[in-house]
Amino acid sequence: VPGNVPSDAPFETVRWQGSLDDGCLVLLDQTKLPLEQVEVVCHDVDLVAEAIETLMVRGAPAIGVAAAYGVVLGVRPAGDSDRGSFQQRLQAVIDQLGSTRPTAVNLFRSLRRLERVAAACGPGATAREVVGKLFTEACAIHAEDQWMCREIGRHGAELLEDGMGVLTHCNAGALATGGRGTALAVVLAAHESGKRLHVYVDETRPLLQGSRLTAWELTRYGIDSTVLCDSAAASLMRRGRVQAVVVGADRIAGNGDTANKVGTYGLALAAEAHGVPFYVAAPSSTFDLSLADGASIPIEERASEEITHFQGRQVAAPGVRAYNPAFDVTPARLIRAIISERGRIEPVSAERIADILG
Amino acid sequence: VPGNVPSDAPFETVRWQGSLDDGCLVLLDQTKLPLEQVEVVCHDVDLVAEAIETLMVRGAPAIGVAAAYGVVLGVRPAGDSDRGSFQQRLQAVIDQLGSTRPTAVNLFRSLRRLERVAAACGPGATAREVVGKLFTEACAIHAEDQWMCREIGRHGAELLEDGMGVLTHCNAGALATGGRGTALAVVLAAHESGKRLHVYVDETRPLLQGSRLTAWELTRYGIDSTVLCDSAAASLMRRGRVQAVVVGADRIAGNGDTANKVGTYGLALAAEAHGVPFYVAAPSSTFDLSLADGASIPIEERASEEITHFQGRQVAAPGVRAYNPAFDVTPARLIRAIISERGRIEPVSAERIADILG
Repeated sequence: VPGNVPSDAPFETVRWQGSLDDGCLVLLDQTKLPLEQVEVVCHDVDLVAEAIETLMVRGAPAIGVAAAYGVVLGVRPAGDSDRGSFQQRLQAVIDQLGSTRPTAVNLFRSLRRLERVAAACGPGATAREVVGKLFTEACAIHAEDQWMCREIGRHGAELLEDGMGVLTHCNAGALATGGRGTALAVVLAAHESGKRLHVYVDETRPLLQGSRLTAWELTRYGIDSTVLCDSAAASLMRRGRVQAVVVGADRIAGNGDTANKVGTYGLALAAEAHGVPFYVAAPSSTFDLSLADGASIPIEERASEEITHFQGRQVAAPGVRAYNPAFDVTPARLIRAIISERGRIEPVSAERIADILG
Repeated sequence: VPGNVPSDAPFETVRWQGSLDDGCLVLLDQTKLPLEQVEVVCHDVDLVAEAIETLMVRGAPAIGVAAAYGVVLGVRPAGDSDRGSFQQRLQAVIDQLGSTRPTAVNLFRSLRRLERVAAACGPGATAREVVGKLFTEACAIHAEDQWMCREIGRHGAELLEDGMGVLTHCNAGALATGGRGTALAVVLAAHESGKRLHVYVDETRPLLQGSRLTAWELTRYGIDSTVLCDSAAASLMRRGRVQAVVVGADRIAGNGDTANKVGTYGLALAAEAHGVPFYVAAPSSTFDLSLADGASIPIEERASEEITHFQGRQVAAPGVRAYNPAFDVTPARLIRAIISERGRIEPVSAERIADILG
């Protein structure tokens, strides 16, 4: 059994605490940030599934890591079962976690990795031994995520120059990953190399991951930042205050079309209109090469109440409906480069993606 | 003294109640909508200025009407003064109201009209007689606003076809004018002529005039509507659900560049990218022909707390700053037509504007 994966950020978004047998998954409850730092301690898979659904943990890579540990929690009680019963339990746990959120492909990739690890265990292996292998794999997914974030930071930092205004949307920071983030890892690496940046943070309606989470992270890093309403980004660009846009991704199709938090697409259109380069930072686990283009990426629709209510209080006119897609798809042609841990994909095309990922 | 101007909508945004001598200005407090319908009864100009500053009354044409009545309230107590003292009081009141909000030109236009009416009174006229003339002019501004709204509705309704999805931003309805609205007057006139429309309403951060006010108006009219986050508009267009965008305006320069609620410019860029016609509906009082283009329109910057807090509760990371321009400028080239009470200005150019308004 591997040791616990140490944190790679000044706070821990997702961590396994303790041994395999007695340990638990500890999540920083992101619905409570920035005003409260509350940890959610998960001893069973049900709470992990709930945490993913309710966005206590969010961000495609972080969901992938949390789900991997969630599988371990889900099958651990079946450690004394025969392999047939164990396998049934494993499948039920994977189905449960797989039904939490439809868009982030990292979730399904994690689950498939664990499925394959279990399948690769010989018929002589006990259920307990399989649990051990799954835990090792979950820790590997977590450690890989940290490595990928650092590499994304390294490849992306070269794109940012001293004095730049950088705009980001939603949260693609340490809170969205098991490591230092994706888009914010790029900002952080540039900052650490001595480049002075000013980061403009879209507040990101409806759940305000920008003003709540990204601004909180940047404050902790000591990086200058300003939040703005999502709708003000175009006028900010027109005023010449933005030299680059960097965002994360929830799923990237084989041609580079990218699903990310709703609003990303409009931002990419505004960036194009102002000649501002638009970058997507994402690990290779975010690519879904089974999809030729973005049209077939499933887009999660969330409850109207996220828009019509605020912290439980109604704000919209009574009875009115809301259109609340959690994501949108930005076509590859609007993306200057995708920054992956394997290097930058530029121009963004099916050929270049296949080259780098293949 | 004219009779009170009757309402032209199922609710009264701005109205004078009672006689000139004993009457008052009654505003529907838009900061309380949609959950409460509270009236603000103004017996003095200070409360009118505060109501404009705090957005109890908002929308360029409605501000113009409220300010006109506000001048009457401000000078009424000086009805027994000599003309010199009266004139000083009038100037102080005009300065006070003119310093409330910088962008909406209708405000300054109303104040200048009243200034001219006072100046046109002969030296033999008593202060009380001048107050009477100012009240008559304020009522005329109000009645003209109603007429302009109806005419805008008539000219714009021809642009909308049965079955269309129409997107609007902020509130350009009866709540924004002394009459039936500007952008919503267009929707309302098309609806009344039997065209079935579905109206998509940007919630309009930070103060949610879309989900609070526009959705409330549309519900009262029985027009189908759906609210959405401002940032979701581009993806909605990409899904083919929007056949026209209609918005209001706060100030239009001589070449057609249009200041309107922040977010309008990004919406216009998205409309252009999807081939969706983008219309501005505004009375001629919104034009400022002294400005050659939009670069010189003053843009109000409002408090950070409108973004970092919600109903008094902090939501953003502590200490973070916000960029909060109330408006942005949409260049004329992105506007298919401006719908004024004198007809449609299309294409939008300095020449056509001068023709129609001159």
